[in-house]
Amino acid sequence: MQRTDLLIAGATVLTVDTEFTILEPGWVRVRDGEIVAVSAEPLAPEDGEEVIDGTGRLLMPGLVNTHVHLFQTLFRGVYEERPLGIYLDYIYRSGVEMRPEDSRLSAMLGSLEAVRNGTTTLVDHHFLNRIPELAEETIEGMRAVGVRAGLARTVMDMGTGIPTEVKETPEDGIRAVAALLEKYREEHDAGRVTIMTGPNTPGVNASDKAVIATRDFAREHGIRCSAHTAEYKGAVESVRTHYGYDGVVEWLHSLDALGPNFLAVHAVQVAPGEVDHLGETNTAISHNPFSNLFCGDRNAPVSDYMHAGCRVSFGTDGAANNNAQGVLDVLRITRLLQRTHPVEPEAISPQRAIRMATIEGAAAIGLDHLVGSIEVGKRADLALFDVEAMAHTTPTHDVVVQLVHSMKSSDVSTTIVDGVVVMRDRVIRTVAERDVLGDAAAAAKALVARLG
Amino acid sequence: MQRTDLLIAGATVLTVDTEFTILEPGWVRVRDGEIVAVSAEPLAPEDGEEVIDGTGRLLMPGLVNTHVHLFQTLFRGVYEERPLGIYLDYIYRSGVEMRPEDSRLSAMLGSLEAVRNGTTTLVDHHFLNRIPELAEETIEGMRAVGVRAGLARTVMDMGTGIPTEVKETPEDGIRAVAALLEKYREEHDAGRVTIMTGPNTPGVNASDKAVIATRDFAREHGIRCSAHTAEYKGAVESVRTHYGYDGVVEWLHSLDALGPNFLAVHAVQVAPGEVDHLGETNTAISHNPFSNLFCGDRNAPVSDYMHAGCRVSFGTDGAANNNAQGVLDVLRITRLLQRTHPVEPEAISPQRAIRMATIEGAAAIGLDHLVGSIEVGKRADLALFDVEAMAHTTPTHDVVVQLVHSMKSSDVSTTIVDGVVVMRDRVIRTVAERDVLGDAAAAAKALVARLG
Repeated sequence: MQRTDLLIAGATVLTVDTEFTILEPGWVRVRDGEIVAVSAEPLAPEDGEEVIDGTGRLLMPGLVNTHVHLFQTLFRGVYEERPLGIYLDYIYRSGVEMRPEDSRLSAMLGSLEAVRNGTTTLVDHHFLNRIPELAEETIEGMRAVGVRAGLARTVMDMGTGIPTEVKETPEDGIRAVAALLEKYREEHDAGRVTIMTGPNTPGVNASDKAVIATRDFAREHGIRCSAHTAEYKGAVESVRTHYGYDGVVEWLHSLDALGPNFLAVHAVQVAPGEVDHLGETNTAISHNPFSNLFCGDRNAPVSDYMHAGCRVSFGTDGAANNNAQGVLDVLRITRLLQRTHPVEPEAISPQRAIRMATIEGAAAIGLDHLVGSIEVGKRADLALFDVEAMAHTTPTHDVVVQLVHSMKSSDVSTTIVDGVVVMRDRVIRTVAERDVLGDAAAAAKALVARLG
Repeated sequence: MQRTDLLIAGATVLTVDTEFTILEPGWVRVRDGEIVAVSAEPLAPEDGEEVIDGTGRLLMPGLVNTHVHLFQTLFRGVYEERPLGIYLDYIYRSGVEMRPEDSRLSAMLGSLEAVRNGTTTLVDHHFLNRIPELAEETIEGMRAVGVRAGLARTVMDMGTGIPTEVKETPEDGIRAVAALLEKYREEHDAGRVTIMTGPNTPGVNASDKAVIATRDFAREHGIRCSAHTAEYKGAVESVRTHYGYDGVVEWLHSLDALGPNFLAVHAVQVAPGEVDHLGETNTAISHNPFSNLFCGDRNAPVSDYMHAGCRVSFGTDGAANNNAQGVLDVLRITRLLQRTHPVEPEAISPQRAIRMATIEGAAAIGLDHLVGSIEVGKRADLALFDVEAMAHTTPTHDVVVQLVHSMKSSDVSTTIVDGVVVMRDRVIRTVAERDVLGDAAAAAKALVARLG
């Protein structure tokens, strides 16, 4: 993976800085992966620079996907029409059948889809930990393609219908998280591989002990927790049955689990008082609207989280709940679903949706000092979109609206991560894309056959 | 526009016949625009045939978009964040400012977007009829690109905030419809240009007289009506105020306006008894979920319409309410929104969504004897999708699920309308696409400037 010095010249630059400054046009210079100049005045190319012509294009910070299960890219659409119980059984059993090579290929596949979507950071929420290699190879797959990798190595210690191979005691789980963090310590500290932990689905398959063990480890080691939080009514009922609390968030709050280092994923079945807890503790949210629709849940109270002061980020969730894995689509659906809100249909403007997909996403996982905006001193995680090149983006009266409502993966021409040009003019540079797709398709079909 | 004899060889063929037969693979032969063979056995190329390699691809009937306002492609996203009243004022006033060339370019632009989406039939619901050339040039724009054109030349004779230039008496409106039908009679009878009429928005900007006049003309001349029907609560209130009925559909039923030749567009604010009216009269529905979300309406009772026996088709609505104009997206969102249904989340299977987008769409506008499925004797309106060529369609375990959830416009490689290869390998053959996009963008910016 070659890092080149770069000049992206003459694009409309959506900086996503605090003022949401847009340069029309602007010039962005990158040295050794760092943004060293953002200018409304033309910058002349320098020796040894790779120059990317941004004329008639939109340059923005790469999108951040704070919740995905990359292994599920191998199951895209295969269990779609099975009843939920059977479908879940397949997902859990895949933890028994998955091999490290499957993890690696699924992560490469999902990362390729991400790069073509303008997504530069992925957080894999990892809950099938039969052997440590599954998480490790997921990270290696992301790194091979070249996305900024995050992996929440979570813990499952309870619940029915879950194979024993993927359950563990909180102590064993924490030991594995510690080993993973040790292995990636340097990359973690540099923000290139972000190791997290967390109770997988608190109250459903992660007990109070798992919540506390991951909380303590995370605080001690300065890492974050990711947890499927109050995704559906059954999760609330399970907490009520096992722990006597009326809400998942209320229970987590009682365990002192919330806070700025806690990423509450989904957060759909959350009562108003619980929203306050999330806001007061400065907990981060990962909003996954396509998954929530797919599972028949209601829309999360996104604007309530905004008002409460939570950082709200976007996730696609895994391909088993959202066959199409683009963050770009999440901007559009988030804005559209908000427009059906009875009180504040305009609460999520296109601009706000873009913030959620970039700087708030970075903040939700503790990377906003490094990425999420185009500003001097930040790492160069960038996506370049064609504008008015195709009918569906013609005319572009307002590039911000256009990005949220009309632009597609196919409009992304170039994606840069940490200064590495992962895709240039729609050609992937880091891996042999056709080979990866072929290998992943073969692995997927073999895995599905093993699952029966 | 050159029509060639065609052999599409070795594709997975989604016939969308009554049994939903899928050939894996299949061969489809086209002679003079007509499908003359659909075979699971290889067909050898014949002299003079253009052979399209379908290996590893999905061939399906072209998608049918039963509701669009093509002129709005010029306003893509420009009035997005204005309050509804101001936004509507712009839309209506554009009827005063639009020139025939704007109509033509907007129709070409929208048709190009459609063709790249695998859409082969468009029904433009036309309600800004200052001069007859606006409708005529809309048709000519569709024909120039080569989609199967439909145009509902509707009537507006009441309502506030509507410039006098685009209001007319029902008598004047009907005279104009008659002239348009006369002009396109031959093309209409051949199903290449389908002329319709209709009261634009009954009870809001079309009176009982307009409903009756269009009803009578349509019945007398064997054409169809299209009407914005009970789209939002305000339409119901307006009918209550002006005509004393509790529902738009109930009122239309009392006027004997419903029936197999009536296309009820939106049909969102419809009471259960009214659903029965629509079913009993065999009225067709155009479901436009993105527009309904955009306008903050609730989801239409789609599965109720299915059970009532209505043909349910898909529309994108105009770009002012749905900046992205792809029917393909409508399949996905229809299925996902249905999954939040409290009683029957599985009512709209991927297969059913595909039927709605093809054969039911054709039936809704009276063209199912000609198009909407791949069967011998039908006209060749076809879309060819790449499969497993990109990460987002890899792996494809189930091509039907994949089509609904994962496939994008960019997966469409070839689109054929009436046997004419409008796009081959992503290259538009019928018009100089770059020139059209440039001209349309310039016209759009000039028009927006005129509107102030």
